[in-house]
Amino acid sequence: MASVLVPLATGFEEIEAVSIIDVLRRGGIQVTTASVESDQNVTGANGITIVANNQLDYVDPNEFDMLVLPGGHDGAVTFKESDKVQSMIKMFDVSKKPIGAICAAPMALAEAGVIKNSYTCYPSYEEGIGTEKFTDAHKVVVDENITTSRGPGTAICFALSIVKQLVGEETHNALKAGLIAEYC
Amino acid sequence: MASVLVPLATGFEEIEAVSIIDVLRRGGIQVTTASVESDQNVTGANGITIVANNQLDYVDPNEFDMLVLPGGHDGAVTFKESDKVQSMIKMFDVSKKPIGAICAAPMALAEAGVIKNSYTCYPSYEEGIGTEKFTDAHKVVVDENITTSRGPGTAICFALSIVKQLVGEETHNALKAGLIAEYC
Repeated sequence: MASVLVPLATGFEEIEAVSIIDVLRRGGIQVTTASVESDQNVTGANGITIVANNQLDYVDPNEFDMLVLPGGHDGAVTFKESDKVQSMIKMFDVSKKPIGAICAAPMALAEAGVIKNSYTCYPSYEEGIGTEKFTDAHKVVVDENITTSRGPGTAICFALSIVKQLVGEETHNALKAGLIAEYC
Repeated sequence: MASVLVPLATGFEEIEAVSIIDVLRRGGIQVTTASVESDQNVTGANGITIVANNQLDYVDPNEFDMLVLPGGHDGAVTFKESDKVQSMIKMFDVSKKPIGAICAAPMALAEAGVIKNSYTCYPSYEEGIGTEKFTDAHKVVVDENITTSRGPGTAICFALSIVKQLVGEETHNALKAGLIAEYC
């Protein structure tokens, strides 16, 4: 069973975080949410508080197959500025393990220097990340080990792409139908 | 400012609940989540625990403009079997206040006898609710004061429809673009 680590920081975008966790677990992936904050209860950009499974300080990143970062401006800034998250991103990339980021969170990947040839993000964030490799032609961009996506409305599609990569096309197709997300 | 009550019961579908709360709050609507359970922390169908704002026993339904029920099989069964939730549904309907339900939750509306001429729900739940008034032609069905929708992949569209009804088309259009949910 594949395992995915999802860090949560204050101001995370709730639809994005929950779509990732929900869809991956439906796909049979073991998802661990880990608070980057001092409290295990983390509150998102729209005031929704989620109880994380653990705190990032107590988690061993080597035990996970993939790292996925939800967006939300303030949460993404924390991912960009946290030494712990930055070193995790670099560690996953050096090991050629897959990394995902959606919405504002690709800024944390840019800071770590792991974006390859092409990526997407929430509109206007490409100005800070770099416009040369940016594309808005797709809801989800997979480039080598880096998967990026655009915002709340593409979060289910982003999660489905991760299921396809970690579990396979058959499970992906069944989930897509079961979620009623034919637009992905 | 419009106000919406969102009851949460164990086994709620997390993408649906969070899409409703998140999008409505983005639209300037005051959303109160209320646990139907004895604990204010409520765990969804995919193991995500949300801290509700209040408990249903302590909430005065007369203070709200709309009642919205997220899906998820077990949570919807609780809504169907709870005397408190059933009497709230009937109270909102008698006052001609809007009521929303997505996925499995329309079964609670059927139990209360408030479905009008047309509704939608998660595939196969129409067999228990009644196939005559069922349609799967749209992601969201608005019929008089009752708004219904199909599942996780239509939850943002469902919430956007509620924003359109309670706040207006301009806010709806701005949110739809901001959420990157052009498929709604």
